[in-house]
Amino acid sequence: MNPWKEALLEEDSNLDVEIWPKVENKERVTFAVSWRHPEKVLDGFLNLKTVTSLGAGVDHLLKDEVIAKSVKLARVMIPSLKSQMSEYVLNAIQNYRFHTSRYVDQKQEGFWSKHDPIPKEECTVGILGLGEMGSTVASSLVVNGYSVVGWAKSKKEIEGVHCFWEGELDEFLAQTNILVCLLPLTIQTSGILELNLFKKLKNPSFLINVARGSHLVEEDLIYALDTRLLKGACLDVFEEEPLPGNHLFWNRPNIMITPHIASITDPKEAAKQIIENYKRSLSGMELLNEVDRERGY
Amino acid sequence: MNPWKEALLEEDSNLDVEIWPKVENKERVTFAVSWRHPEKVLDGFLNLKTVTSLGAGVDHLLKDEVIAKSVKLARVMIPSLKSQMSEYVLNAIQNYRFHTSRYVDQKQEGFWSKHDPIPKEECTVGILGLGEMGSTVASSLVVNGYSVVGWAKSKKEIEGVHCFWEGELDEFLAQTNILVCLLPLTIQTSGILELNLFKKLKNPSFLINVARGSHLVEEDLIYALDTRLLKGACLDVFEEEPLPGNHLFWNRPNIMITPHIASITDPKEAAKQIIENYKRSLSGMELLNEVDRERGY
Repeated sequence: MNPWKEALLEEDSNLDVEIWPKVENKERVTFAVSWRHPEKVLDGFLNLKTVTSLGAGVDHLLKDEVIAKSVKLARVMIPSLKSQMSEYVLNAIQNYRFHTSRYVDQKQEGFWSKHDPIPKEECTVGILGLGEMGSTVASSLVVNGYSVVGWAKSKKEIEGVHCFWEGELDEFLAQTNILVCLLPLTIQTSGILELNLFKKLKNPSFLINVARGSHLVEEDLIYALDTRLLKGACLDVFEEEPLPGNHLFWNRPNIMITPHIASITDPKEAAKQIIENYKRSLSGMELLNEVDRERGY
Repeated sequence: MNPWKEALLEEDSNLDVEIWPKVENKERVTFAVSWRHPEKVLDGFLNLKTVTSLGAGVDHLLKDEVIAKSVKLARVMIPSLKSQMSEYVLNAIQNYRFHTSRYVDQKQEGFWSKHDPIPKEECTVGILGLGEMGSTVASSLVVNGYSVVGWAKSKKEIEGVHCFWEGELDEFLAQTNILVCLLPLTIQTSGILELNLFKKLKNPSFLINVARGSHLVEEDLIYALDTRLLKGACLDVFEEEPLPGNHLFWNRPNIMITPHIASITDPKEAAKQIIENYKRSLSGMELLNEVDRERGY
């Protein structure tokens, strides 16, 4: 059985769950659960009240013009998504500081050579986006002894983190060695990771993108690495996924690539929250983690 | 200038520091600072009162028969040695859980494939040796959400860590998925990491050796990996260093190799402690971090 169907039925065996494309009667469906569904899949679901994203991102729902504006949108936000993201980012930072990729490469060659770690003092982490993910990541880095600054559209308070906001982006960048993108993807944030922004970072600088591929102007990253503006990058998300076999990133030194695995929703943990929202949707209540269409997240 | 001489003179410009082999008069030397010095180097230093190791380990001093039994031994133990070790071990555990080496290899090949992380529930960490290094590493893993057990020759208490001791080694191993060796190298602990011990670990199991190469029976590790008793290993230390180019470890999948870099003494930070011990040595006081020759550490 599909793991999502299994998890939902285990929570509530009376649920009526269908897995696309095996949907008998589209008009009976009131609640949909999706992760990057193919285009036009939701056409004809005339009684849909709510669509929930299986992950933290909802850009795939917002850009789908087939979903009526009256349909409410939500996302799954469970503790394990945040803890996975925190662990991924810490690991990415440590692998940059300790030259893990080089040692893996040296092993292939049977070559013994030491490389000085990058001191913590040259690793102030700047978290771009201080929502549920960003604020949790920031706090976990503070616990691990990192200097952390953050930037968000609105004013935030996180213990041990200097939070910049709105017009203070340049001040934030000037203090940041390691930039971690955890922004939602909106019209405003698309392409935000570009050459001019990279130039404003503190030296030595490093980029971690764990948000969406479209936050990054890919050719600007290549240029920034080639001109040594950036020492390296760790990317989990890409404009096109899977990353095409002939993409320049594969052959670029100093880029660590992972296949969109930083934070994966666990069906068992998510099922409770999805069912809670299903009940709320039926009774017209406000949803958990409801998306503000205006704001874009 | 030699970085050690520079750091010592910066602390106290009146010090008389000579760097081997440029020693004018061996009989004038009362205090020596060493890291794995060549054999017989200390022959003829008739007025030596103290030798201090530049790192946490002192096995290189204890095995040197040229050093008279009346010479006091000490080691450098500074905060950064412990924090570096904590960071190294956390990184090794995360790289095992998140398949970092595989992703680095996949990047070489331009290959996109996801691998399920190893859940934290299958990663109870067992710290073998709860001295200054071991206890700090244990605590830092607790802070990062790991279940941690420990074993030491004597009874220890560390918050959040179940500490086994002496005869309870088997119970300790039965709860351990990830075994971290941080023991001093003594006659009792040499070769402790061998097949029978590996068999007592909890499945899935993984080995991290950051102590000394001689703790490990190398052929037993190969056997344990080939028979899937162990899922993998991360090694920073080896019987022979640099690890010879034709050593079997280089070509073994599931072994991560780093060139003895887990914890490196910073001359500037260590200089203060060395000079303090120099003064204590001159006035016949007890040394900081003095070594018990009987105990072997």
